[in-house]
Amino acid sequence: MRATLIYGAGDIRVEDVPDPVLHEPTDALVRVLRSCICGSDLWPYGSRPASEQGDRIGHEFLGVVEDTGADVSGLKAGDVVVAPFVWADNTCDFCREGLQTSCRHGGFWGANGVDGGQGEAVRVPQAQGTLVKLPVGEDSALLPSLLSLSDVFPTGHHCAVTAGVGPRTTVTVIGDGAVGLCAVLAAKRLGAEQIILMGRHQGRTDLGRDFGATDVVAERGEEGVAKVLELTGGDGTHAVLECVGLRPAIETAFAVARSGGTVSRVGAPQYPEVPMGFEEFRRNVTLTGGIAPARAYIEELLPDVLAGEVEPGRVFDTVIGLDEVPAGYRAMADRTALKVLIRP
Amino acid sequence: MRATLIYGAGDIRVEDVPDPVLHEPTDALVRVLRSCICGSDLWPYGSRPASEQGDRIGHEFLGVVEDTGADVSGLKAGDVVVAPFVWADNTCDFCREGLQTSCRHGGFWGANGVDGGQGEAVRVPQAQGTLVKLPVGEDSALLPSLLSLSDVFPTGHHCAVTAGVGPRTTVTVIGDGAVGLCAVLAAKRLGAEQIILMGRHQGRTDLGRDFGATDVVAERGEEGVAKVLELTGGDGTHAVLECVGLRPAIETAFAVARSGGTVSRVGAPQYPEVPMGFEEFRRNVTLTGGIAPARAYIEELLPDVLAGEVEPGRVFDTVIGLDEVPAGYRAMADRTALKVLIRP
Repeated sequence: MRATLIYGAGDIRVEDVPDPVLHEPTDALVRVLRSCICGSDLWPYGSRPASEQGDRIGHEFLGVVEDTGADVSGLKAGDVVVAPFVWADNTCDFCREGLQTSCRHGGFWGANGVDGGQGEAVRVPQAQGTLVKLPVGEDSALLPSLLSLSDVFPTGHHCAVTAGVGPRTTVTVIGDGAVGLCAVLAAKRLGAEQIILMGRHQGRTDLGRDFGATDVVAERGEEGVAKVLELTGGDGTHAVLECVGLRPAIETAFAVARSGGTVSRVGAPQYPEVPMGFEEFRRNVTLTGGIAPARAYIEELLPDVLAGEVEPGRVFDTVIGLDEVPAGYRAMADRTALKVLIRP
Repeated sequence: MRATLIYGAGDIRVEDVPDPVLHEPTDALVRVLRSCICGSDLWPYGSRPASEQGDRIGHEFLGVVEDTGADVSGLKAGDVVVAPFVWADNTCDFCREGLQTSCRHGGFWGANGVDGGQGEAVRVPQAQGTLVKLPVGEDSALLPSLLSLSDVFPTGHHCAVTAGVGPRTTVTVIGDGAVGLCAVLAAKRLGAEQIILMGRHQGRTDLGRDFGATDVVAERGEEGVAKVLELTGGDGTHAVLECVGLRPAIETAFAVARSGGTVSRVGAPQYPEVPMGFEEFRRNVTLTGGIAPARAYIEELLPDVLAGEVEPGRVFDTVIGLDEVPAGYRAMADRTALKVLIRP
């Protein structure tokens, strides 16, 4: 079969790889219907050291079960399923607490002999715990939004939930990438009163307005902070959803958080330290969030997606075939694409 | 009257100052029955630049109302009252959210013309919101525990509450000072299953065991972390209560936090940055806490103190008169005293 590998910064290749086979009785084989490129794929795309041997890449996919191991129940060939971006048994103590990203028997796609999602098929470890069956056909018009349940929509939702977003909450979302836009959508769905989106790409912030942003702040740094404070009577917002992962974003996040408020971050931090000294202490500001346990949220978000009440799939503005994946990475890195959908 | 002033690092003096008088109709005058020295008083005691003019100091006191302004209702001369360590109107939006430390009309003792607590009397601004009436006489044996409601017990409680301590929670408390011990007491009161106290002063950790610590770890740094992990099956604890405020303490806190867990800090941070990079993100570790809104918790904690079900006043191991306050500071700085009670 064909699959995507990364050989170094800027070096993405689609190659022939061995067809996946069942290794463990808890495995399933899934033929990929839709995959996509994640903002977090751009970190290795920007910085991975070059090597002779490539690594499989991609962690978001939706597909059709082709075969299951002897210990897998509840799934059968022909089922349409979505996979969260971390695989997990969904039964250990961490999974039961809703933290499947810390599963005692789970792991990441594209690592330690596990396939990546940007290919024609995937061997899914811990399939019964990992995969969620979708009541749709292979040709459903909902596939893009259902694929977003793999990562980007639950990640935005995790950001909003851990920040305590609910009715009467004021929210700032930092970042107009696909995760930031899904954070807007999640905050709206949870009943937030005011949603200020900080972003400067108008096509994206326009979608953010469609998703529920009440205000858009295009300024950055001190100017951006001043704008958010102006929009909130000088106080900042109860919740700040940091969907970037860079140091200026987390600095802005604390500056626009209301006293007693919460900053949640879901952009993988590209910084080792966080500016939380006496001032944040005096104002009782919390920092929460982290890598989103997408699996914990799929069943909760699925009905609204199926009903068309939310359309997170609108973040996909570019659709490509598998052989175009290298161009897809370039488009996302150059910001000519918001988020790229792959039809293998 | 006599009151305590700080003139510089190590320079504490008890001097004659003008008797307080009512300035605003929202003021009350309180004759101080008991005051005390706080671990946080040791920061200026250790580092304040020397000056010709001293500043009033002390922010924990309990006393008798002597007079009230025209706008103060619910309080009258003769009432025994306790003051939280930040004064507040208790009616603004922040106060209604339980964040009286961010009150829109509040402030700190010993600053901007407001008296400090380590003196014979205090003019109390926003008296109706600030003071809590206590149903005891001036000679009650409960005064030390009731005085602890001013700061140290609610501070430990805030740490435990914001860290999410409850039944089935495992807890690490870092620091065996008076706040750390009160955090142990608060965690026990909230039903924590396991309470590991990190501290190396045996007299203090023995009191910690009395307060509910199930384990004591005397080691520090990596050795201490290894011990806590050993006591928790390698996982760390759900809640980590950081009651010190120094960089090694917050580093230890993250290292002993379970994935998905919460670090709460109530020791005023003597560091500008917090080590929360990718590893804490991957493990979904939260940092919360801050300066404790003691006022928010006094009514909740008071009944247990009155019933003798908790005895936070046991943290006072030294009792002095007002003229001995300079020696009291020395004793706390030298760690020969855990916490010093003052009878003016």
